[in-house]
Amino acid sequence: MDLNWDRLSHVTKIDPAEHVPNDLELLDGTDLVIVGGSDGVTAENTLDAVQKVKSQFPDLPVLQEPYRSSHVSSKTVDTVDYLSVPAVFNGDDAHFVRKHVELFTEAASKPDEVTGSGLPVVGDAISSKAREAVSELATKIIGEGYVIQNCDSKAAAVSGVETPYTTEEVAGAALAAESFYGFPIFYIEYSGTYGGPTDVAAASQYLDETVLLYGGGIETHEQTAEILDAGADAVVVGDCFHDDPEQYRQTIP
Amino acid sequence: MDLNWDRLSHVTKIDPAEHVPNDLELLDGTDLVIVGGSDGVTAENTLDAVQKVKSQFPDLPVLQEPYRSSHVSSKTVDTVDYLSVPAVFNGDDAHFVRKHVELFTEAASKPDEVTGSGLPVVGDAISSKAREAVSELATKIIGEGYVIQNCDSKAAAVSGVETPYTTEEVAGAALAAESFYGFPIFYIEYSGTYGGPTDVAAASQYLDETVLLYGGGIETHEQTAEILDAGADAVVVGDCFHDDPEQYRQTIP
Repeated sequence: MDLNWDRLSHVTKIDPAEHVPNDLELLDGTDLVIVGGSDGVTAENTLDAVQKVKSQFPDLPVLQEPYRSSHVSSKTVDTVDYLSVPAVFNGDDAHFVRKHVELFTEAASKPDEVTGSGLPVVGDAISSKAREAVSELATKIIGEGYVIQNCDSKAAAVSGVETPYTTEEVAGAALAAESFYGFPIFYIEYSGTYGGPTDVAAASQYLDETVLLYGGGIETHEQTAEILDAGADAVVVGDCFHDDPEQYRQTIP
Repeated sequence: MDLNWDRLSHVTKIDPAEHVPNDLELLDGTDLVIVGGSDGVTAENTLDAVQKVKSQFPDLPVLQEPYRSSHVSSKTVDTVDYLSVPAVFNGDDAHFVRKHVELFTEAASKPDEVTGSGLPVVGDAISSKAREAVSELATKIIGEGYVIQNCDSKAAAVSGVETPYTTEEVAGAALAAESFYGFPIFYIEYSGTYGGPTDVAAASQYLDETVLLYGGGIETHEQTAEILDAGADAVVVGDCFHDDPEQYRQTIP
């Protein structure tokens, strides 16, 4: 399934470690689901959440955003549309490059385990079929350039973020995300607080092909409208999906 | 000019701080020139070297590989085919992400200075023409994923490289360079010593669209052949271009 980024304006982030209702009809009106979290997340509860969404909305695209490689299994990979891996611009180097090289090194050197293909690896030699499986897996992995602006958040703590970016740095990171790193997603994360439209406006002027997401503190229709007017492709709504369905509905444009 | 990567097998790296002969006929047979270095390099001597090459070989593509933003001027940008900016996988975080965000932040916030366009910036507002100039500049900047394997080299010292990658990590970094970061170039740098074909073979199995370059200690036709046979798109020859024209000629396949 190709993501239809053009009709994206509302994204729901589901934490598989939180309660996921069996009846997901409130997802009617969202355009994309991202499944991911840190504490308590496993490949099993991730798969369970993805399958619940897919069974009720087969055409709704679902990304898995893994925080650790233990959140990924061959079944989650097969079931989601993409694995979306955060690259945190203002985090420590582990969260921009080191974790990614580890992930791809693991995929490249143990293709049978990572792809679950049972393809043979003889000594250090990787068979051409296993290489194909790895390359296919790699095409399912996309990069999300993240800027985390709330330094008191859990997201900041786990990514080594100590200082928010200035508005100018947000614009520079956006330009780098699109033209240098080629990330399909650029994500401004205010994680639990509403950050307003300033960073979004700065980033959006340099983003053409890369999709601009804003997340953090969205609770009203007006906030959604303000962020979309500033140039975001979509708002990401997480907490109130789990906590407050009525409020969640108000965030849909 | 679009680079014709398909017919690439020999690349010459010219250090503009070293002596660049006026008669460059020995470049006949190379497919691409990279101009860059660290000590003594300026925007002026870079431009001089690029213009010498372009005046004798107008169709030979030339990349500028700047180490500092002071090596770049609006004239070097206009004269070269691409600005090729190293992202050193096994370097410190300054050389993978921080320097790039600084570069793009500068470009995004001071478009008149960076593009030399004299386009007006009113307060913090960047005019749409200036934004276009920045976006155009950005399309000229391409990423080179680097792995520096000789830790005693100058290149390692200036990039914060302390440990070479294992062969498995080289393969993982190659896979990440192509499928995650989307870098058009992956460069295995043995800088002054001949590293042999092992890393090249490991990387090449995961590179399809990304061009694989090998540099370091190439002095003979046999070494060139061994590296190309292992799957590199091209060898990069630097030192002997300046020091020993006869030896340089022997590296051309």
